[in-house]
Amino acid sequence: MNNMTCGTGVELPFLIRPENTARYEDGEVLILDRRVYPFEVKFVRCKGYRDVAEAIRDMVTQSGGPPFCAGYGMAQAAREARGRSSEGILEELERAAKCLIDTRPTNNGIILMTEKMLDVGRNAVRNGHDVENALVQAVNAEFEARHKRGLAIGENGASLLRDGDSVLNHCWAESGIVYTVYVALQQGKRLTAYCSETRPYLQGARLTADALCDMGIETTVITDNMPAYLMSRGMISKFFTGADRVTMDGSVINKIGTFQIAVSAHYFGVPFFAFCDGPDPKAPTAADVVIEERDPNEVLHCLGQRTATPLAKGYYPAFDVTPAEFVSAIVTDRGVFSPYSMVSYWQ
Amino acid sequence: MNNMTCGTGVELPFLIRPENTARYEDGEVLILDRRVYPFEVKFVRCKGYRDVAEAIRDMVTQSGGPPFCAGYGMAQAAREARGRSSEGILEELERAAKCLIDTRPTNNGIILMTEKMLDVGRNAVRNGHDVENALVQAVNAEFEARHKRGLAIGENGASLLRDGDSVLNHCWAESGIVYTVYVALQQGKRLTAYCSETRPYLQGARLTADALCDMGIETTVITDNMPAYLMSRGMISKFFTGADRVTMDGSVINKIGTFQIAVSAHYFGVPFFAFCDGPDPKAPTAADVVIEERDPNEVLHCLGQRTATPLAKGYYPAFDVTPAEFVSAIVTDRGVFSPYSMVSYWQ
Repeated sequence: MNNMTCGTGVELPFLIRPENTARYEDGEVLILDRRVYPFEVKFVRCKGYRDVAEAIRDMVTQSGGPPFCAGYGMAQAAREARGRSSEGILEELERAAKCLIDTRPTNNGIILMTEKMLDVGRNAVRNGHDVENALVQAVNAEFEARHKRGLAIGENGASLLRDGDSVLNHCWAESGIVYTVYVALQQGKRLTAYCSETRPYLQGARLTADALCDMGIETTVITDNMPAYLMSRGMISKFFTGADRVTMDGSVINKIGTFQIAVSAHYFGVPFFAFCDGPDPKAPTAADVVIEERDPNEVLHCLGQRTATPLAKGYYPAFDVTPAEFVSAIVTDRGVFSPYSMVSYWQ
Repeated sequence: MNNMTCGTGVELPFLIRPENTARYEDGEVLILDRRVYPFEVKFVRCKGYRDVAEAIRDMVTQSGGPPFCAGYGMAQAAREARGRSSEGILEELERAAKCLIDTRPTNNGIILMTEKMLDVGRNAVRNGHDVENALVQAVNAEFEARHKRGLAIGENGASLLRDGDSVLNHCWAESGIVYTVYVALQQGKRLTAYCSETRPYLQGARLTADALCDMGIETTVITDNMPAYLMSRGMISKFFTGADRVTMDGSVINKIGTFQIAVSAHYFGVPFFAFCDGPDPKAPTAADVVIEERDPNEVLHCLGQRTATPLAKGYYPAFDVTPAEFVSAIVTDRGVFSPYSMVSYWQ
């Protein structure tokens, strides 16, 4: 991969490098355990696609991580089916795709990646190529494409940033926002950042803050209940998040908490920019997206310690929906779009 | 104390009983350590008022707890000054009051309690009474008054609740809200409750949820980033909080996070009721109240464990300001007031 550093000395952070998302080694998928990073740098070793599915379900990786892991999981399925008939191999790939998609129903990237890998698998079978190898190469090419797309999103995102901006990010910043900061720093813009910690998994406090600090930005972690107060004091000039899904009506489906901050941003006139690789043409509205509800116990704990009275129940919707009226723009590899003209992305 | 239970079998919860806030025993003040409750039931033992001040500063108790602890601390100052001249005793009481007020500048209750105790002290000195004993009796009388005021607020608060209401509370519910639920349950109303966990100290998850469960209410803990989503799904019918201070312009100063939820509540038409013992006549507007900023390290940890990358800084404003336009009503012992007519409380 080229262009990981640039003339100004800015480097892409540890977390955004492909090998620190997932690696394929001799039929095993190694996934950086984002649940314990940065307190521990540990890779979870998956021997087959069912292990990969379990790791995704258990939040070993999240946001932009699962699609790549799922892609490598498809290669594992091909390895498992080696020696079977063409139909047998394709059946195994379809079984794996279903198993991997079932892990996180709101994450569209897993669906798209497994669809692509099914096509790659069919072509390889048809042409008599090694299916496992074809799939591994295809995932590696997806990492390279992510890098190019990241630079494109970064150019578009950086066009929105002014020298001296103070950016709030919720949850994991994902490659789009990381590249945006990377490009803006290359352009010599000075930035400061706030990260809402993002309970229950603390992706903001652990991952985003780490990646932004890695690029040399002064980064302050706040709890999820503070953004409105900081806005009321004029401390935030832009609100950025990734998006697990953007629907064709400009709704942003992202980590729980995004919507609540967006409502406050709207009140204070702080623009909210959501970053993605394009809207989902198969989802006309937010009603077409399943909002995942996770094990309630996760909100009753923090880093393994019980946080709530043993008498209470928990509730854990993992995502929320921010309607277009609260979204200033959707930032993509193809440009900056109004949430009211998502169709232009595909034109 | 009478009336702790009632015909319907509802009892006041553990946390609202005076002896579980603070006790005076032979010159020592014992304070329930709310930082570890309910995982541990432990009392911090304070040998003098400086220990009490340290305990308040260290958040051993918070919200409605510190005033009572400060009152007992004044009794300790009198004990320390025993045998000195009248002037010497009063000087020590004034020194103690200043020391205790300096702990949490946003908590008006400490100021009011120490002012009262200074009056009690002056009277006792003037009349040749035992000052320590007079102060202890005065604090005990304040607990009794809190109970009566709680029942009065509870009557007023319960008048706002309908059978089947689902109430969201942020931070510690304080006696006003606990008594409101207590009275509403006596009236046979069925309620469900949601508690936002309230990072970084988790008062909602640990204290409020515990107290509401103690009264037999189905209580669900959520993270601080979820209230807007629950409102968008129609799961919340009322938003309740205590108030560390209400200013004469109807601004509610309360635990950080209150304002952010109030903005969402306003958007969704969920009424926000703030509970207090009356507005502060010495604070015309929110600008007259100091917003305490605490050690940033506290937001980088949860229950003693580091939650953020070691590279990042933290920021910890402990309170926020909700302007009158987001407040449906202020619930007090004297009635339910519009935030735009706080002066009527004192008329």
